[in-house]
Amino acid sequence: MTGRFLSLEGGEGAGKSTQARALAAALEARGLPVLVTREPGGSEGAEAIRALLMQGDVKRWSAHAETLLFAAARADHVEKVIRPAIEAGTWVITDRFIDSTRAYQGGAGGIDDAAIFALHGFGSRGLLPDRTFVLDLPIAEGARRAALRDGAMADRFAMRGEHFHADVARAFRTFAAREPSRFRIVDANRSPGDVTAMLLAQMSDLLP
Amino acid sequence: MTGRFLSLEGGEGAGKSTQARALAAALEARGLPVLVTREPGGSEGAEAIRALLMQGDVKRWSAHAETLLFAAARADHVEKVIRPAIEAGTWVITDRFIDSTRAYQGGAGGIDDAAIFALHGFGSRGLLPDRTFVLDLPIAEGARRAALRDGAMADRFAMRGEHFHADVARAFRTFAAREPSRFRIVDANRSPGDVTAMLLAQMSDLLP
Repeated sequence: MTGRFLSLEGGEGAGKSTQARALAAALEARGLPVLVTREPGGSEGAEAIRALLMQGDVKRWSAHAETLLFAAARADHVEKVIRPAIEAGTWVITDRFIDSTRAYQGGAGGIDDAAIFALHGFGSRGLLPDRTFVLDLPIAEGARRAALRDGAMADRFAMRGEHFHADVARAFRTFAAREPSRFRIVDANRSPGDVTAMLLAQMSDLLP
Repeated sequence: MTGRFLSLEGGEGAGKSTQARALAAALEARGLPVLVTREPGGSEGAEAIRALLMQGDVKRWSAHAETLLFAAARADHVEKVIRPAIEAGTWVITDRFIDSTRAYQGGAGGIDDAAIFALHGFGSRGLLPDRTFVLDLPIAEGARRAALRDGAMADRFAMRGEHFHADVARAFRTFAAREPSRFRIVDANRSPGDVTAMLLAQMSDLLP
């Protein structure tokens, strides 16, 4: 039996990595084999590309070069880690996937959504999650949580400006509305335990 | 007045970088401003991507991830270096460009030529050289020259096998036959001075 593929999406500070771990624990408690991963990165080659994307100035890369780098990192991550795990029966939970590229480089960065899908088709044979959860949070609350975590994250959050974060959040909501069978929007402005319970409820149709 | 864009292509050991410098000197002697560059690399970001492509095992990247990395590097090189130089009136000579991706990842690696062009359209707005010279050399002579230069180059040449190099050479000849106005095939099995003279003769229509 093949595994399932779940992605967590949303802005900075929404709790994606916390929820990825909590969801993994809940699935493991049901006896399911689970792999938690993240993007950009998640494989040796993709982590090297991540370093290029995160180093230096926010404007180091043009939107087009950046989108190609994300596609290259994702191609490596899918081929070396995600697809083999799913085929081996593992449930894969990733902190960000293709919809982050669509929201950040597309919705907020101006790159055409069809072009992003075309790159995903080329690099990753168009692999999509069985379910994508958008952790939805008011932008001010995301900024407050980012500030609590570390200075570098708060700086990057602030540097991009409120319009940018509003564009990202709007893009995620638009994708969810267009593809309701794959997406679920979850209110992330709740306790971590409540959010995990909502995630599990919103994927009950996938559970064995 | 805008500059011109020239690319040198061919297998390892064909003399591309030597001829790029010699051609630059000949054009500068005519009072033309010249920039010599190379791929993968040629800009700060693209050189960082080059390091990822050259490090580690030949099989580190899948053909698709590798093609995306080349497209990302080229997008940065074109946007930051090549296009601004041409627009400023400079003659740009590059040691490898899009046709190397078409020959290595396409002809020898199995990636569809139309897909490579689509990535080039996305990343670099489809920029093509005004003239592309293919430095054609018997494979045995390329291997001999690579061995004379340095051990690492000879190892990489040998590791890929004769079939690979034959596929690359055949791909370059096919592109040249399909697009005769852009391409010129030049016999590289001659003295460097003879080759430079042939290059200049084969671009006389471009010279002011």
